[in-house]
Amino acid sequence: MRRLLERWDEVQDTLPAPDEAPGVALDSVTLLPPVPDPTKIVAAPVNYRDHRSEMELTVDISDLAVFLKAPSSLVPHGGVVELPYSDRRVDQEGELAVVVGRRARNVSEEDALSYVAGYTGCLDITMRGQEDRSTRKSFDTFTPLGPWLVTPDEADPADATDLVCTVGGAERQKTNTRYLIWGVAKLIAYISTVMTLEPGDVIATGTPAGVGPLADGDAITVTLSGIGTLAVTVATKPGAGPSPTGTRES
Amino acid sequence: MRRLLERWDEVQDTLPAPDEAPGVALDSVTLLPPVPDPTKIVAAPVNYRDHRSEMELTVDISDLAVFLKAPSSLVPHGGVVELPYSDRRVDQEGELAVVVGRRARNVSEEDALSYVAGYTGCLDITMRGQEDRSTRKSFDTFTPLGPWLVTPDEADPADATDLVCTVGGAERQKTNTRYLIWGVAKLIAYISTVMTLEPGDVIATGTPAGVGPLADGDAITVTLSGIGTLAVTVATKPGAGPSPTGTRES
Repeated sequence: MRRLLERWDEVQDTLPAPDEAPGVALDSVTLLPPVPDPTKIVAAPVNYRDHRSEMELTVDISDLAVFLKAPSSLVPHGGVVELPYSDRRVDQEGELAVVVGRRARNVSEEDALSYVAGYTGCLDITMRGQEDRSTRKSFDTFTPLGPWLVTPDEADPADATDLVCTVGGAERQKTNTRYLIWGVAKLIAYISTVMTLEPGDVIATGTPAGVGPLADGDAITVTLSGIGTLAVTVATKPGAGPSPTGTRES
Repeated sequence: MRRLLERWDEVQDTLPAPDEAPGVALDSVTLLPPVPDPTKIVAAPVNYRDHRSEMELTVDISDLAVFLKAPSSLVPHGGVVELPYSDRRVDQEGELAVVVGRRARNVSEEDALSYVAGYTGCLDITMRGQEDRSTRKSFDTFTPLGPWLVTPDEADPADATDLVCTVGGAERQKTNTRYLIWGVAKLIAYISTVMTLEPGDVIATGTPAGVGPLADGDAITVTLSGIGTLAVTVATKPGAGPSPTGTRES
């Protein structure tokens, strides 16, 4: 997939249009994450106006605390999120994710959207606690991504996409990407001044109000209008015991 | 390199011994980072007894706050560390780095060292400030790695290796890996319970006392006994201006 994205400008005109493509029955295939091996996953924390107020944070550019998640934490649509410990709280955070299409370094906000390969759904699963954020969010299975990649010519979720996240059938998060504090273009531009973005890199754009704890057996969905629904289930990791690093929360 | 490490058990006996290998003159080649494209870089923060006291932290397993660095931040021996802003402090942190040789998930401390492909030198370059740690440490050029990989049969730096880091010819950091709070085996074991380690993944084992600010033109060296010297220089990033996220430090 990364090699396809690297050569996208060359190959896109040689691909059949969606309504002319042969197609396969969706239930005959096993979906993988749209990019199974990105060189990095960069994620924004709370990034919707309502969630900011819930978390009692002010809106200030100096709070743009993007962080990294390990690519080894990816699971596809239909996958299982594993709770690693018996004594720690783990929350869902439903998000819009952006997949980078071209190498991006020091790009301007004006040019930023031309570096997008497509959009997909994402769950930034997060253990609460005192460990470093990039660790608490990088347990294996903590980044469901999918169900598939929608190219910008088919939908433009950076503009005004409804986002609904349910857990156990109950709605927990509901917003629209128009309420993003730092929009897709701003995020790409800022991140590209810190670290070079490579084709296939994933940007999780941050979550709205309504994060909450997960329990064994929960079903989670993230529905993005114009993209689709990412659905996963929650299970306790086999052999899970107490956390070796304690249960203090921060 | 990652493919070589994945097949190391098969191929190592087919390689010539060091004293029988044809060899090339060191000054005739350009070194790259020993692994130029690890799937992740996991790093420990302060991890030597003397540095812990300097940073006023207690030694507690709950403080084992490992974090991620972006693979795009790697530079080789002989490379240049770029200061991204005109108004922010950037420090050197000299370290021993471990390269993972085999996929590791939930490995025990007893088995952990059998997952090591080799050892090399590392600088965990760090901008001080309020951004997320995984961002402040992931600017392009912020992870010098090298000069080369030393396999465990040639040296066992996990045991008792002298580490000396100089900036502008002056010694800033001096310790021995015997003073590591969380040793190599403990780090591998713990990290593998959080995230699956892949062949080629890099673990930066943490820094001792003596971190300090860098300036344009500085030369940095990290010397590890039995491994070699990693040397890089410091320059201001072309066009560097004030940080867009302010100068508050945390």
